[in-house]
Amino acid sequence: MSKTPAYAAPSPGAPLAPFTVERRDPGPHDVLIDILYCGVCHSDIHQARDEWGGGIFPMVPGHEIIGRVRQVGKAVTRLAPGDVAGVGCMVDSCRECDPCRHDSEQFCEKGAAFTYNGTEMDRRTRTYGGYSTRVVVDERFVLKVPASLDPAGAAPLLCAGITTYSPLRQWNCKPGDRVAVVGLGGLGHMAVKLAASMGAEVTMLSTSASKEADARRLGAHGFASTKDASTFSRLAGRFDLIVDTISAPHDYNAYLGLLRPKGAMVLLGVPPEPTPVAAFSLISGNKRLAGSLIGGIAETQEMLDYCAAHGIVSDVEIIPIQKINEAYDRMMRGDVRYRFVIDVSSLARA
Amino acid sequence: MSKTPAYAAPSPGAPLAPFTVERRDPGPHDVLIDILYCGVCHSDIHQARDEWGGGIFPMVPGHEIIGRVRQVGKAVTRLAPGDVAGVGCMVDSCRECDPCRHDSEQFCEKGAAFTYNGTEMDRRTRTYGGYSTRVVVDERFVLKVPASLDPAGAAPLLCAGITTYSPLRQWNCKPGDRVAVVGLGGLGHMAVKLAASMGAEVTMLSTSASKEADARRLGAHGFASTKDASTFSRLAGRFDLIVDTISAPHDYNAYLGLLRPKGAMVLLGVPPEPTPVAAFSLISGNKRLAGSLIGGIAETQEMLDYCAAHGIVSDVEIIPIQKINEAYDRMMRGDVRYRFVIDVSSLARA
Repeated sequence: MSKTPAYAAPSPGAPLAPFTVERRDPGPHDVLIDILYCGVCHSDIHQARDEWGGGIFPMVPGHEIIGRVRQVGKAVTRLAPGDVAGVGCMVDSCRECDPCRHDSEQFCEKGAAFTYNGTEMDRRTRTYGGYSTRVVVDERFVLKVPASLDPAGAAPLLCAGITTYSPLRQWNCKPGDRVAVVGLGGLGHMAVKLAASMGAEVTMLSTSASKEADARRLGAHGFASTKDASTFSRLAGRFDLIVDTISAPHDYNAYLGLLRPKGAMVLLGVPPEPTPVAAFSLISGNKRLAGSLIGGIAETQEMLDYCAAHGIVSDVEIIPIQKINEAYDRMMRGDVRYRFVIDVSSLARA
Repeated sequence: MSKTPAYAAPSPGAPLAPFTVERRDPGPHDVLIDILYCGVCHSDIHQARDEWGGGIFPMVPGHEIIGRVRQVGKAVTRLAPGDVAGVGCMVDSCRECDPCRHDSEQFCEKGAAFTYNGTEMDRRTRTYGGYSTRVVVDERFVLKVPASLDPAGAAPLLCAGITTYSPLRQWNCKPGDRVAVVGLGGLGHMAVKLAASMGAEVTMLSTSASKEADARRLGAHGFASTKDASTFSRLAGRFDLIVDTISAPHDYNAYLGLLRPKGAMVLLGVPPEPTPVAAFSLISGNKRLAGSLIGGIAETQEMLDYCAAHGIVSDVEIIPIQKINEAYDRMMRGDVRYRFVIDVSSLARA
């Protein structure tokens, strides 16, 4: 075991503060990673504040981890010391169930081992996330990060990247498709970049007209304000795919009206209450309302390789760990373009 | 023009009574059909009672039409006098828009010409349905009915058949798939027959335990009562596809919990109010909630040919037209197994 400096929420909603976690000694299949950067995901805030319930405290958040491999177990073949490596939302799963055998470890029937606020598959050993200087993970759950990717900008790819890449692939986003992205935040800005890179004609739908210039800079070809009711008549029946990143309450039926026949709207955000859906919004046009949750490990590797090939990383603001509580407050105000990333060397120095 | 005996709802909700409609003389592309049988669809009742609003009265319902070709226009090539022919929910569309060019005439951007309670594409000439002795339809919207199909049992295929066949095809129902059908009525009994014929393992989900024997006779391999809460835990994560034929209020989230990852639930019924959907019901498992509306003409022909190849027709109770009001009342009580079909010779005799 090795003592590892970290930042933790000591109790639900309490400010994050210095903490020390124990990391296991690497076993034969393990990879020991010195963490360089860790992205700050909205779900870190939800969980540190125990808004989803069941939180395990003290909690070390962070599941957008980029680091350098320091040591590998003797059976490890995929990575070697010195490699840049990534760890996303999961660090293990049962590896045997139907979803695990079909690259959907996030839906492991026994419950995947999530990177923090959970346990390893032994259901006893607690997991601690990337707001720390080191992590030890089985190689099967470690991603290879192409050297051409800026490591700080690549960190958010491990969650925001795969969360938006997967639905675009599931719904076969291709050149000429008309794709709308709803909401320009951490997820939305990745969805715009990725959909545009796949050749889609991308329209940003946002409540904030002030975001138009940024949306276009990120690759959007069009912009429409969802506060303008005429948007919903003007763009009716236009889109093949809508990627909805919004967690605030909104009327799904209005957006479904923007789909072409057989079009799909994919939910990535979770509004606080269920949203009424009129059956006719789906029946009229054979439309689909879907959800998507991160992605499997193989798909995450595919996404990283894709981003390297297309020169895509997240737009980030790098902060020292000591600014994490301030960063949470700024995220709650939407004051980040578009992802905070912790420079973990600030923690090593602390 | 030719005067044609029919039955019509003279005003919203009034009992249906004898009426006479004018049918146009067949043009070069038209087919004049002597109607043999017409199925009675729940939507006939909704429209005759103007429950969807905008009804055009007097209204001659009926869009599950089987007849024999009496006469064809000189340009008609697909049908000849003596052929058994079918007419479903549509009699024309613009033929030029994107959906029309892609076999989705039901989503014609100009609005398809529905078989009754609508107008031809001139937007002036009213359409009257199959509760009548003859109909004149452009050959492009006339289906060829294989001679091996019982004509009375085939009538409901034109709406109930295609409405259930299309979603099974859209969602790639295949041997070994686990398919649940919710509700055993006109649509549900066709969904069971069709899904079983495609090699799926079919489970009927119904509020009425008394329907189990019938469900199994129709081809279901399993049955579960949706009034038994343990059904939703016992069958959690089991199904690849759920075909939901229910128009009464019900909790979509409970049924979404029965889907496997990436599974789909397809709505065919329209409950009176929108149904709350929790985003997490879809996100957890990359699930899909979809709708489906009848099918295009080519797909309807494919369905008829498929049913002929697999010996599938609807289970029907044949009635004379004079019993139509009683039949409506019985349908409202669920007292039909599983489709009334009007013997139109009763009208000719009237």
